[in-house]
Amino acid sequence: MENELSVVFKGLEISSQEIKSIEDSFTKVILKKGAIVLRNNEDVKYQYYVLSGCLRAFFIDEKGKEHTVQFAVNDWWISDYIGYFSETKSVLTIESIEESVLLRVSKKNIEEAYNQLPKVERFFRKKMERSFVSFQKRILANLSQSAKERYQNFIKTYPNIEQHVKNYHIASFLGITTESLSRIRKEIMQK
Amino acid sequence: MENELSVVFKGLEISSQEIKSIEDSFTKVILKKGAIVLRNNEDVKYQYYVLSGCLRAFFIDEKGKEHTVQFAVNDWWISDYIGYFSETKSVLTIESIEESVLLRVSKKNIEEAYNQLPKVERFFRKKMERSFVSFQKRILANLSQSAKERYQNFIKTYPNIEQHVKNYHIASFLGITTESLSRIRKEIMQK
Repeated sequence: MENELSVVFKGLEISSQEIKSIEDSFTKVILKKGAIVLRNNEDVKYQYYVLSGCLRAFFIDEKGKEHTVQFAVNDWWISDYIGYFSETKSVLTIESIEESVLLRVSKKNIEEAYNQLPKVERFFRKKMERSFVSFQKRILANLSQSAKERYQNFIKTYPNIEQHVKNYHIASFLGITTESLSRIRKEIMQK
Repeated sequence: MENELSVVFKGLEISSQEIKSIEDSFTKVILKKGAIVLRNNEDVKYQYYVLSGCLRAFFIDEKGKEHTVQFAVNDWWISDYIGYFSETKSVLTIESIEESVLLRVSKKNIEEAYNQLPKVERFFRKKMERSFVSFQKRILANLSQSAKERYQNFIKTYPNIEQHVKNYHIASFLGITTESLSRIRKEIMQK
């Protein structure tokens, strides 16, 4: 587990001994393509760090339409953060859209790790700030950018993701139809 | 300043002496109605805690249309968090929509306070998690709720705010026209 955790905490000065002191908090999970990590309306016990593979968190509206809230590839964290932080039932579904290797950690265990190693708390506090920034950027982009610009940002944010995900996943992330997505791609190709 | 800071940190066990050790980080600011706290494309040095009054953060799109991203009343924090956390220029404008009394703190000073008092870092880390939750809830609400439900949530989240803000502020927060807002209010009144 030490090798995996040194990947999780890269950028943080953390010794082997310190990693060992918290490694029991993390559990490795291997998921097949199509596996559901979390269903809507369940307790949200864990957040997940992606070592390899690709996950997708989506929301199903009353009409049954899927809205992709987040993708997570190598080095991303994913969860239903509303449920995870506020200890309420999940509103999202999270699926593994290809074989994925994850590390999962419970809220209780990570809080214990924070108590033991304050620098781990700081590390996650800063991660949280960056997530907040990228989430808010995405909202503002939806208000101000064309679908084409949003698509171009998307491939910058998630390089190489297109080989992993279906067109309707991307379209539902961008808030457009798959037809619009095809048109945009064609436009870009023709340049 | 001690009294004001004990309001900021309510819920946290913090002694008078501890408050005194960090109080120089906070500056009281009194703003007239209509004052601009932050303009688009400026350095974002501070975040603001609202002691009284009401502020509004908004984004102006390429067509000149205003999108209200956040209101802040008593006991809320507000800033252009993209600029504040990632040390880039502001994309939002923040105005005081009535006379307001704020405490402002710079990123540098709050990080120093975190170093001095780890419990202050934890306090803000948890606040950040709650902000992330409410921000994500709002996004999902926009995907799944009717304008009427969103308006009802809005008045639950910001009780008594309607006396402070203009109709077009609320409409631009809900992503609807002022005409739709009037219709929704009428519907609710008639019940």
